Amino acid sequence: MSHNIAVIPGDGIGNEVMPEGIRALEAAAHRFSLDLNFTEFDFASCDYHERHGKMMPDDWRDQLGGMDAIFFGAVGMPDRVPDHISLWGSLLQFRRAFDQYVNLRPCKLMPGIKSPLAGRAPGDIDFYVVRENTEGEYSSVGGKMFEGTDREVVIQDTVMTRTGIDRVLKFAFELAMTRPRKKLTSATKSNGISITMPYWDERVVEMARGYPDINVDKFHIDILTANFVLHPDWFDVVVASNLFGDILSDLGPACTGTIGVAPSANINPEGHFPSLFEPVHGSAPDIFGKGIANPIGQIWSAAMMLEHLGHMDAGKAVVEAIERVLAAGPGDAPLTPDLGGRGTTGELGEVIAEAIKNG
Amino acid sequence: MSHNIAVIPGDGIGNEVMPEGIRALEAAAHRFSLDLNFTEFDFASCDYHERHGKMMPDDWRDQLGGMDAIFFGAVGMPDRVPDHISLWGSLLQFRRAFDQYVNLRPCKLMPGIKSPLAGRAPGDIDFYVVRENTEGEYSSVGGKMFEGTDREVVIQDTVMTRTGIDRVLKFAFELAMTRPRKKLTSATKSNGISITMPYWDERVVEMARGYPDINVDKFHIDILTANFVLHPDWFDVVVASNLFGDILSDLGPACTGTIGVAPSANINPEGHFPSLFEPVHGSAPDIFGKGIANPIGQIWSAAMMLEHLGHMDAGKAVVEAIERVLAAGPGDAPLTPDLGGRGTTGELGEVIAEAIKNG
Ligand SMILES: CC(C)[C@H](C(=O)O)[C@@H](O)C(=O)O
Ligand SMILES: CC(C)[C@H](C(=O)O)[C@@H](O)C(=O)O
Repeated sequence: MSHNIAVIPGDGIGNEVMPEGIRALEAAAHRFSLDLNFTEFDFASCDYHERHGKMMPDDWRDQLGGMDAIFFGAVGMPDRVPDHISLWGSLLQFRRAFDQYVNLRPCKLMPGIKSPLAGRAPGDIDFYVVRENTEGEYSSVGGKMFEGTDREVVIQDTVMTRTGIDRVLKFAFELAMTRPRKKLTSATKSNGISITMPYWDERVVEMARGYPDINVDKFHIDILTANFVLHPDWFDVVVASNLFGDILSDLGPACTGTIGVAPSANINPEGHFPSLFEPVHGSAPDIFGKGIANPIGQIWSAAMMLEHLGHMDAGKAVVEAIERVLAAGPGDAPLTPDLGGRGTTGELGEVIAEAIKNG
Repeated sequence: MSHNIAVIPGDGIGNEVMPEGIRALEAAAHRFSLDLNFTEFDFASCDYHERHGKMMPDDWRDQLGGMDAIFFGAVGMPDRVPDHISLWGSLLQFRRAFDQYVNLRPCKLMPGIKSPLAGRAPGDIDFYVVRENTEGEYSSVGGKMFEGTDREVVIQDTVMTRTGIDRVLKFAFELAMTRPRKKLTSATKSNGISITMPYWDERVVEMARGYPDINVDKFHIDILTANFVLHPDWFDVVVASNLFGDILSDLGPACTGTIGVAPSANINPEGHFPSLFEPVHGSAPDIFGKGIANPIGQIWSAAMMLEHLGHMDAGKAVVEAIERVLAAGPGDAPLTPDLGGRGTTGELGEVIAEAIKNG
């Protein structure tokens, strides 16, 4: 079985870590006899925007729609193109047009990575954030009135639908069913956001009826962020709206010290459209060009992509290779400076690829 | 000069910690020769709701409007009254009707309190969150359509005004001017929330023009929450919209280990209406009735109230008394169980009151 994979490096360090992601995929393909075909695209980048006055060609849907998956780097160079233009013109389009309504991010304390939290060790923190990825607070409905006067007012709608909420909840409950602890936490704010969030809560209660084996709880987003820091061991699967999920899926990896290495998947579970896999970190203009960007987020995203394509063993092998190299530490592996080492992006990518090949 | 203070214990442990807040205020009044008159109100509680079918009497504005300040405990008992009813029927009414447009919360690592963050000591973390407190994401505009069908959709507006944003920014910039580091961080999400948040950013840029001495930066809320955990020392004054401020002002105290003891002020800076002072913690139904609630949040809120009423020395004396008792540790002071001690609410309140008196 062969897979056609769209490769979009995007901006900044996206271009530096992408080759290492591909190298890891090629190593896995070699070991597990997979047939992966890569097609690279230069759009969804600020370079493209500067040349064409837009982030993507008009036929981007046709170019990407037939692919089996999209392997993505990072997008955004705020000094050159405002973020709301670069992001809404690319990544956020993919999520919507390809109905990638689940954004999935593991929050896992990895060996050799220092958590900023006191007294936590690998195994202590291991949960998923499941984020609604197409609606909610990220709407483009609204506008401005009395522009340029003291009475100026801006309004933006949060839009939640039963369909939109239920399908991401279903994904989260199903994921919780596969986990030993069978626990699901819902992020809400129904005490303050008085229309949409009580509705979210209702749908959670309704969905929970169908999953009597799942232990369900909920927290308001303010105290939930506090509990990520105070009690990260409480969590197993955390499901959240678009904005709350965005916050929790940066905060979670921050608590495990892995924000620079965490992966994410933007999934269309039905497979009607390609899903997209990208590191959590952004384009990092501040370190771009130095060759020191950590490629693990891109490589770990490759693992999620392999699993999504049905190659669980290959995905697992990639994650294990990452764990082995991290556990070796900066003395024995060319870890990048953010991990206390002196390796380059390419050197670290190379040892991980070797580790994948050697199993 | 005498001050009329409305006392509203509210729900749950609000009733247990409030007497200790009053005791501290009486100690400070004694030492600094202040004339404080307390009037207690039983509304803004779920008890009241059960008796009257509403959270407050119709003339609550008249009863409270002439007061110099409101000293508040906590509200909400979700098993008895849904949160969006109890909160929107009381606390959130006060904030709006009394135009308490600034919500101010210190995030400070205190002696004797263990931070969940590794390797942080008192002095390392000391910043304020300034939260917009009357508009933004907490609007009551919106509704539901196609109710009860698969097409069900709920919509809620975020509403931001130039007036509303500018006045809270001004407060934050002025606060930053009083601090040695003169640094202000704006919480945004203009890369995803594409209408309101770019407007927020514009107003920050505009306001910053008037404060050339202030070092201004901004972070998107997702990475900002991560940075609270990774680099809490970066922050001095953090200004945020209603929802983002709500999140940051729980997360900040969580990072300093003080969520159970942190205070907050809901301020009408012009003094046209009474300001309200309350602990960050809620009514904590799980520990209510056991006499073990930590009264420090209520007492620290009393200190903020004294400062607001112009008695800086008295406010400072209360905070110093708290710090002295905390530094003594559970061996020498009757700290409550959450602080590793075996004291009761009353015992801890008493030693703090003594410490205030003795200076
Ligand atoms: C109880 C709730 C409505 C309230 C808020 O979100 O404003 C609380 O979290 C707070 O921060 O005071
Ligand atoms: C870049 C930004 C628009 C995006 C988001 O908020 O969704 C990012 O933070 C993410 O989480 O993928």
